[in-house]
Amino acid sequence: MNASLHAKRIELVRAALRAKRLEALLVTHLPNVLYLSGFSGDSGYLLVEQERTTLFTDGRFTVQAHEESPQAKLVLQRGSLAATVGAYLARVKPVIGYSPAQLTLSTWQGLRKAGGTKVRWRPAEGIVEALRAIKSRSEIETMRAAGKLACQVMSEVIALVRPGVRELDLAAEIGYRIRRKGATGESFDAIVAAGPRSALPHARPTDRRIGKNELVVLDLGAILRRYCSDLTRTVFVGRAPARVKRWYRAVQDAHAAACDALRPGVRAEDVDRAARRVLERYKLGRYFVHSTGHGLGLEIHEAPRLGRGQGARLEAGTVVTIEPGVYIEGVGGIRIEDDAWVTPSGSELLTTLSRDLLEL
Amino acid sequence: MNASLHAKRIELVRAALRAKRLEALLVTHLPNVLYLSGFSGDSGYLLVEQERTTLFTDGRFTVQAHEESPQAKLVLQRGSLAATVGAYLARVKPVIGYSPAQLTLSTWQGLRKAGGTKVRWRPAEGIVEALRAIKSRSEIETMRAAGKLACQVMSEVIALVRPGVRELDLAAEIGYRIRRKGATGESFDAIVAAGPRSALPHARPTDRRIGKNELVVLDLGAILRRYCSDLTRTVFVGRAPARVKRWYRAVQDAHAAACDALRPGVRAEDVDRAARRVLERYKLGRYFVHSTGHGLGLEIHEAPRLGRGQGARLEAGTVVTIEPGVYIEGVGGIRIEDDAWVTPSGSELLTTLSRDLLEL
Repeated sequence: MNASLHAKRIELVRAALRAKRLEALLVTHLPNVLYLSGFSGDSGYLLVEQERTTLFTDGRFTVQAHEESPQAKLVLQRGSLAATVGAYLARVKPVIGYSPAQLTLSTWQGLRKAGGTKVRWRPAEGIVEALRAIKSRSEIETMRAAGKLACQVMSEVIALVRPGVRELDLAAEIGYRIRRKGATGESFDAIVAAGPRSALPHARPTDRRIGKNELVVLDLGAILRRYCSDLTRTVFVGRAPARVKRWYRAVQDAHAAACDALRPGVRAEDVDRAARRVLERYKLGRYFVHSTGHGLGLEIHEAPRLGRGQGARLEAGTVVTIEPGVYIEGVGGIRIEDDAWVTPSGSELLTTLSRDLLEL
Repeated sequence: MNASLHAKRIELVRAALRAKRLEALLVTHLPNVLYLSGFSGDSGYLLVEQERTTLFTDGRFTVQAHEESPQAKLVLQRGSLAATVGAYLARVKPVIGYSPAQLTLSTWQGLRKAGGTKVRWRPAEGIVEALRAIKSRSEIETMRAAGKLACQVMSEVIALVRPGVRELDLAAEIGYRIRRKGATGESFDAIVAAGPRSALPHARPTDRRIGKNELVVLDLGAILRRYCSDLTRTVFVGRAPARVKRWYRAVQDAHAAACDALRPGVRAEDVDRAARRVLERYKLGRYFVHSTGHGLGLEIHEAPRLGRGQGARLEAGTVVTIEPGVYIEGVGGIRIEDDAWVTPSGSELLTTLSRDLLEL
């Protein structure tokens, strides 16, 4: 793919390793392997040492590994991946960083056993995630294109919302249109939730038919050249009653407040608080049951999280969702979600579809 | 959903715990949580004790947990799931089984820390998987319906294969038709791989257009009422040359040999060997780079694996894929895959679409 890009990222990892007095990093999380090496197979670990980079995978991915990761030395696994990597480490005996959140306990036990007692393991979370969190201009432009594609599909599918249509039929349209427009797939299975089901933040589409005078939440995303978009709009089928309009306005205002707060140097929790305070002012704080947003990139959820207790300061190049919502059990829910990036001086939305209430 | 069904499964877990002298089982794998409790949320652990069953999840899933798992006591998490479960266990102090392959190392560390030193942890792999591997008649019928739906979509999409059509367009058609026929989604992102790309067993669809005189591998699956199907057919665009016909016949014969071998009491590795021997007889053994099949059910890959070194004997009620293939780098690949269940006296295919070579 882009060998110099991967070489540059590997060099940044090596610099981080030197700063932490580590001799190697075992990368066990596939999106991190992809980010550093270009390898997109379904199974593989990357070992970054100062002098070389080694990709461990199995025979199903030999051709792909050579094509995608020409810079990494390829080692095909014998037995389990853990046993293969462990046997390699037993020869090198490095001081090695690893991520406890990205290994199962059984893999860890397998690595320890095959590696023997000479390998010195050191927990080292977040080295690759910290690099991934700051997107380059080229990554931002890819994500802008992924966001634009999501907006096009959203506006086409909103035009199909009417009484009698099933949630699943709209979900089918979403997946189809996303792929027909050139995305490789959906960032996640689209959510189409109507009526009381819209009060479930993570509803899966069912064969329930949309009724009159119902809220409909549509949450979808496209993967374009590996990068995810994530977009939610809520529409009302019929003329919205005053209380629904008031809830909608509250979520709109919370969304705007979070976007205003988003800039370099702000703490992640302060962006969350900006949205939450607006909803509290509307006496709707207790109906906002999740965080205001999450990082977005090669994964649909990545660092940072815009939520309580997240004190880290955001840097320019960070891409996050802004997605306040209210969920009223038995009645319905409203969520408005866009993707935004932290610019050098503030923030900019990557998804620019209208956020006004649509009454269909 | 079906409270008596879940109660029965929980009782089988309790019997297994008594046999292993365990007082509790911590179920951390979501498909296992679903199987035992009906809870289908995206985050949650189930704790099975002799006297009660407890579901731990977060506020996003409160309504859903009450609806889907009325039998389980609901505990909403404070802080992390590991900290919440650990705090509960610190009071109960059980001898508790857990699965090292279904916990990250960091979750494990969190559980140990919050649980304190009085909890006695015992590795206990596969208790729920062993139950899940043996399907009831009702599960088999659901899987037959999921297989039938996959066959219908396959035959519709094969009719769309022609020169100039992009792999991604066919993948979009697959996802759309699967959902329109009432499935909740795809078991996995469909594979459409044409020409030399068909030699990659795990190819992802690209915007490459299908050419004349190419092999096209289509691998798709539907999720119907939670259960997965998995189906592969390979077609030739044009008149197949003699060597392609010979490869195809070899894979067909390997498929038939594996199906013949599949019956109660046979070892998983012997079903694999039956397919492999046929391909070796055709001098194609080295082009068969994966196992002959895998268990299928709530997950697209579950126990058992039909591969080398898998000595476990298959029981009636087991559902597996049979999917031999040959992959010739730079040229193309052929795979034929069906779903089959082990009947009390032999085996039966759940997917019954023709396996003859189609020249389009």
